Amino acid sequence: MSIDLKNDRIIRALLRQPVDTTPVWIMRQAGRYLPEYRRIREKAGDFMALCKTPELACEVTLQPLMRFDLDAAILFSDILTIPDAMGLGLSVIEKQGPRFSHPVRTSTAINKLGVPDPETDLRYVMDAVRLIRRELDGRVPLIGFSGSPWTLATYMVEGQSSKTYSIIKGLLYDEPNTLHKLLETLATSVALYLNAQISAGVQVVMLFDTWGGILSPRAYREFSLKYMKAILEQLEREFNGVRIPVILFSKGIGAMVKEVAETGCDAVGLDWMQDISSLRKKLGDKVAIQGNLDPAVLYATPDVIKAEVAQVLEDFGAGCGHVFNLGHGINPDIRPEHVKVLVDTVHEQSMPYHKVG
Amino acid sequence: MSIDLKNDRIIRALLRQPVDTTPVWIMRQAGRYLPEYRRIREKAGDFMALCKTPELACEVTLQPLMRFDLDAAILFSDILTIPDAMGLGLSVIEKQGPRFSHPVRTSTAINKLGVPDPETDLRYVMDAVRLIRRELDGRVPLIGFSGSPWTLATYMVEGQSSKTYSIIKGLLYDEPNTLHKLLETLATSVALYLNAQISAGVQVVMLFDTWGGILSPRAYREFSLKYMKAILEQLEREFNGVRIPVILFSKGIGAMVKEVAETGCDAVGLDWMQDISSLRKKLGDKVAIQGNLDPAVLYATPDVIKAEVAQVLEDFGAGCGHVFNLGHGINPDIRPEHVKVLVDTVHEQSMPYHKVG
Repeated sequence: MSIDLKNDRIIRALLRQPVDTTPVWIMRQAGRYLPEYRRIREKAGDFMALCKTPELACEVTLQPLMRFDLDAAILFSDILTIPDAMGLGLSVIEKQGPRFSHPVRTSTAINKLGVPDPETDLRYVMDAVRLIRRELDGRVPLIGFSGSPWTLATYMVEGQSSKTYSIIKGLLYDEPNTLHKLLETLATSVALYLNAQISAGVQVVMLFDTWGGILSPRAYREFSLKYMKAILEQLEREFNGVRIPVILFSKGIGAMVKEVAETGCDAVGLDWMQDISSLRKKLGDKVAIQGNLDPAVLYATPDVIKAEVAQVLEDFGAGCGHVFNLGHGINPDIRPEHVKVLVDTVHEQSMPYHKVG
Repeated sequence: MSIDLKNDRIIRALLRQPVDTTPVWIMRQAGRYLPEYRRIREKAGDFMALCKTPELACEVTLQPLMRFDLDAAILFSDILTIPDAMGLGLSVIEKQGPRFSHPVRTSTAINKLGVPDPETDLRYVMDAVRLIRRELDGRVPLIGFSGSPWTLATYMVEGQSSKTYSIIKGLLYDEPNTLHKLLETLATSVALYLNAQISAGVQVVMLFDTWGGILSPRAYREFSLKYMKAILEQLEREFNGVRIPVILFSKGIGAMVKEVAETGCDAVGLDWMQDISSLRKKLGDKVAIQGNLDPAVLYATPDVIKAEVAQVLEDFGAGCGHVFNLGHGINPDIRPEHVKVLVDTVHEQSMPYHKVG
């Protein structure tokens, strides 16, 4: 397996196989905290131009790998490419987050939405994947991703992020069938999109369910988890005889993470509010775990960063199935030197947990 | 007990004693969703002027009781009165939230902070409590409250709410002793303040730990829960021979709510991401539970509101120890008629769960 990879630690850890040291990558590792990223972004003009130009997306994807000993690359893209391809008009404004110029809020608008064809409507993503794979040359695996149907729907209905999510919650409670129709279209679209990413070359896929945590447990099951399960059923879990691990990450869902672990995914992402030690016990050998350092630890001094990284490693303990990561994306005002401390500490301090015998 | 109260359902439910129907109140029930509130607030000029004028605070406290069959009044005030009394200069700007003109960020600034004397520095709160008790005339109990030390500290250090809480988290990880010193001063201040509220007449007290959920489990224990426990130890739990129930509410803390239930408080508040049914089983007879309807349900139609209220009642089930509430404060754009549907439905639909025999 993964014979074309010089470093397959992440794949192995996601499949709960032995590794020499705990693999690590960082959500949003290609991003604004890197001065070389900010330079390219300025040149590109705006965020979506960067995503839509495969050469630039490739360059940005590889930037953090030049600086840090990361065990994976993650495609530089946005979680909202699918609704953009559906014609909602995505723009990502610095410090304000994503916005859609044409939100969808009615059953008529939702029924009109088509399922994007990945190789035509999202061709720029597939081209970026192919280019990055070529440039990576097997150094580390490439992670592909999408927003979850529920998370895509929140932005598509609200038009932007929200404090109260009153519009989509109104739909959820008053017109659940309309919302289900939207989520079905999205689940089909996401599955097609991720399968196309796999065909183009991604070696791991991840679903980001950023807003799963705003739902009650009952609503989470019905409007978020259900559609992540539907995607899992449609995903190619093997490509050319190589297993493609799938990571599900719903932020802020507390105890519901146990139900995520039972979906058939390979790994669950944990935010930093979760106790990785007790969860590992509860989840048993069902899944691998990705996470879960508080992203704010990176504001602290190197000694504190080392101690907090060591604490997460100790909390997870010995054995297979841990991919180190932050519990959320890295903040734009973090110093790159601190990321180096984190990455190196994970590799150095985790070795004793992987000794055989 | 509570012989001077015409309706003591909330006190009884918080102490896990039998009631005829489930009591209900709503976080932020005196607030912007009521046109009569907006009129007074406009007259007062700004939010803090409203808090600091006992006659207006009293009028506003009583407003929701004129419209709805609520089982408690809650003092109209802010969770941040203590740091304001410490000299940090609080202003509450509509749609932007609270701001301090003089945040504290250094050990020197923190060491200089005094413990406010409630009857002088926060006299306006005590006067409001006395006036409201007189006006309520025993109709329902009056709830007093404060922000938790951790939540007060987040605003005091950041100066306002934040997306990343990088300043206070930097302090937490780099200078934990400085932060502990601040939290100790706050715990002493909050205990004195709540005891003064009790002497002035409040019959229930509640700690709002709005930002407990941004902490890792370890940090939550050390920087939030510990100081709520310290307050519990210093609180007068009886006044004039009458028990004063204490409610602790940390938002977004997931599984940590079990540790909150073990602090010795009388009740825990649950946000809407918690499963009230399984938590009731886990918490057993340790504490009463307050919550936990998704505040967004109030955007839905009356029939949906009724069904969702019925669902929470069914999830809690038969027996003692439930105070109905939203899982967070009511949003300003909710229609008051929908609140009436909620309150009346709680009373009507919960009766079967309280039948004896």
